[in-house]
Amino acid sequence: MPSAVLAAIGDELLSGARLEKNCNFMAKNFHNRGWELKRVEIISDEEDEIINLFSRWVGKVDLLIISGGLGPTHDDKTRYAISKYLGCDLYSDSLYDKVVERVKNDPRRLEYTERCRDPQAMIPKLAAPIFNPVGFALGIKFEKDGTKVLALPGVPMEYEAMTRQELPEIFSRENKNYAWTSIIILDVPEMTIANKIPEVVNNKNLHVSILPAFPQVELIIRGQPLQVEDAERIIRKQFPDSLPRGCTSIAEAVLFEAKAKSVKVSCAESCTGGLVGASLTNIAGSSEVFNGSAVTYSNEAKMKILGVSEATLKNLGAVSEQCAAEMAEGALRVYDSDFAVSTTGIAGPDGGTELKPVGTVCFGVASKAGTKTFTKKLPGGRSEVRLRAVRFALSELWKEIRK
Amino acid sequence: MPSAVLAAIGDELLSGARLEKNCNFMAKNFHNRGWELKRVEIISDEEDEIINLFSRWVGKVDLLIISGGLGPTHDDKTRYAISKYLGCDLYSDSLYDKVVERVKNDPRRLEYTERCRDPQAMIPKLAAPIFNPVGFALGIKFEKDGTKVLALPGVPMEYEAMTRQELPEIFSRENKNYAWTSIIILDVPEMTIANKIPEVVNNKNLHVSILPAFPQVELIIRGQPLQVEDAERIIRKQFPDSLPRGCTSIAEAVLFEAKAKSVKVSCAESCTGGLVGASLTNIAGSSEVFNGSAVTYSNEAKMKILGVSEATLKNLGAVSEQCAAEMAEGALRVYDSDFAVSTTGIAGPDGGTELKPVGTVCFGVASKAGTKTFTKKLPGGRSEVRLRAVRFALSELWKEIRK
Repeated sequence: MPSAVLAAIGDELLSGARLEKNCNFMAKNFHNRGWELKRVEIISDEEDEIINLFSRWVGKVDLLIISGGLGPTHDDKTRYAISKYLGCDLYSDSLYDKVVERVKNDPRRLEYTERCRDPQAMIPKLAAPIFNPVGFALGIKFEKDGTKVLALPGVPMEYEAMTRQELPEIFSRENKNYAWTSIIILDVPEMTIANKIPEVVNNKNLHVSILPAFPQVELIIRGQPLQVEDAERIIRKQFPDSLPRGCTSIAEAVLFEAKAKSVKVSCAESCTGGLVGASLTNIAGSSEVFNGSAVTYSNEAKMKILGVSEATLKNLGAVSEQCAAEMAEGALRVYDSDFAVSTTGIAGPDGGTELKPVGTVCFGVASKAGTKTFTKKLPGGRSEVRLRAVRFALSELWKEIRK
Repeated sequence: MPSAVLAAIGDELLSGARLEKNCNFMAKNFHNRGWELKRVEIISDEEDEIINLFSRWVGKVDLLIISGGLGPTHDDKTRYAISKYLGCDLYSDSLYDKVVERVKNDPRRLEYTERCRDPQAMIPKLAAPIFNPVGFALGIKFEKDGTKVLALPGVPMEYEAMTRQELPEIFSRENKNYAWTSIIILDVPEMTIANKIPEVVNNKNLHVSILPAFPQVELIIRGQPLQVEDAERIIRKQFPDSLPRGCTSIAEAVLFEAKAKSVKVSCAESCTGGLVGASLTNIAGSSEVFNGSAVTYSNEAKMKILGVSEATLKNLGAVSEQCAAEMAEGALRVYDSDFAVSTTGIAGPDGGTELKPVGTVCFGVASKAGTKTFTKKLPGGRSEVRLRAVRFALSELWKEIRK
């Protein structure tokens, strides 16, 4: 297995001001191609730290990708660290002309881009430039003691575009003896799943990850292609109600099933505040089957837009299965859809009562066949309760469409 | 400055199946208290790797917090690595009784919790247990060569609860000579900001981070309390339209301003699909001022729910300032609010045309004072376009409420 290390550079990462996501993006690429990712590191934007990083990994892995520290400001030190590490000067590479060319029709950006030529075009003489198709700073690559090193900007958009551009070269050594698959199972506890597929879990030639995220458990199986295929067959036989092949989330399964059945879906959201709609529309092509979501936070909006009855709100409260049912039926009607799902609950931290503690969420799924309701007591803080509610709502919607 | 290192253990992190967030959460805590976070590492769940981590950092920093590998399954190796590293056996700690006590009324969970006593209660003899107030596995702590080591579960809910529980002890050494502040400025390019406050940017005693995220730039200033205060005064004088003190996002500023003015807000969303509502409702207490958001993905929903005219959709299209205006006005009316904001655009990757390429988004802000509209061409992929659109929509909403 070829091996790699990923590192991200930046005080904004070490101070928690920014959540590091580039390494996660790249980690998936390594995983999918059977590379071994040995470690991910976040280090500060000091020259010594960057040089220290090279000293620790160059010669030890096939590939080292670092991100950040290539911009035009005082705290961007990656290019100087590389030139010091390689013991060479920097020069201004003409590849930067192609960056300038891109903004030639915008005088303000043109002026700015030229002003930043030094340092954004500066490349250590013993390294080579990498074109930046979306941003300004050139990337830098070099090879030493058998390790390929890529230095890329930290801006996720630029990082992703530039790794994509370099991927064919990076992944030229294909690993034909490696495959992986992911299977998402709903409503079964992880220990129960593990106990039902001992021949998969105990197979020493497979690497099995069991990742619970209520109400789903994702199984990721890695190993030799034929063995992975066997494992998948065993799992799908034991759990025929797992999400369809290729669906990496419940939202994808909803869209997949709705497209297959040519039906339209809509939502009515209270405590999830738009997250159910956001999950569905995060996926390209969702407009084919998703009509919309009525986020009704106030009782007035629930009545006026969705037609929830005043009596329900007064006698049973907004957090009730009856209200959830009326919300889902309202969404079905106003969006003229075939299936609708609703959420109404107490995400916290305030608003809980003894009978309806924080985390209580009611759900409704409506279709021409009728309306189903559910109540769940979800654990965690506000954001965790909301995310669990989104996944549960979508899972019940998926089951209903799939019938 | 006391120093720390954070590490996360788990193949699901190195494979990219899970995005690591615990270290970001804890990094903020260190930053806020003037600790130096030297590095963040993600390592695989192998015993040798964990022991290697201890060897590299014990004796070098004041605190090392590791997360993950404490569960009941075959890939949870943290406790064995600690016992090997310290050269001692494991024992079953009675603190686990308190965990069992919590589920005593739920026979199924009780049985499961007891079944997992070994290994979840197992603590190396030269270490001490940490109570888990929300999950099952006990944490582990020990001290060696001047380094405090905490091993906590990787489940974010448990990690956060347990660090909170241990924080008073961890942060007992307060750093009185340290302060930090954050100021968010809208609609000014980062270089322009830097040029307008040279006395802040060039002050060698301050650590200044400049973090752009269209349409905002966040300045984070760290240093001695009086110098940080001075810097903040200078910045706020130069940029009087920055977000109010204490607001860490534009969504918070919207809620802050709406509460101050006792006004209600609502939204009408197309391309953002519910994300504007989700951003606002992510903040506790948002129900005081947020009535709801009409996510209208289909043209029919735009007409039926928000009253967008058929002529507008036919002649100008859904992605037009006229449509955005009618959507915002519709949201104002149906949600009976004082201010409403709308988004309609092409998030991509498909659906772009020469006149309206992917990334084109129209916005409307409506109030009793009238309606304003905007069009932006936002860069990036689908998810980036949507997030930028959310921030821009909220920033224009905030400005309008603030007037």
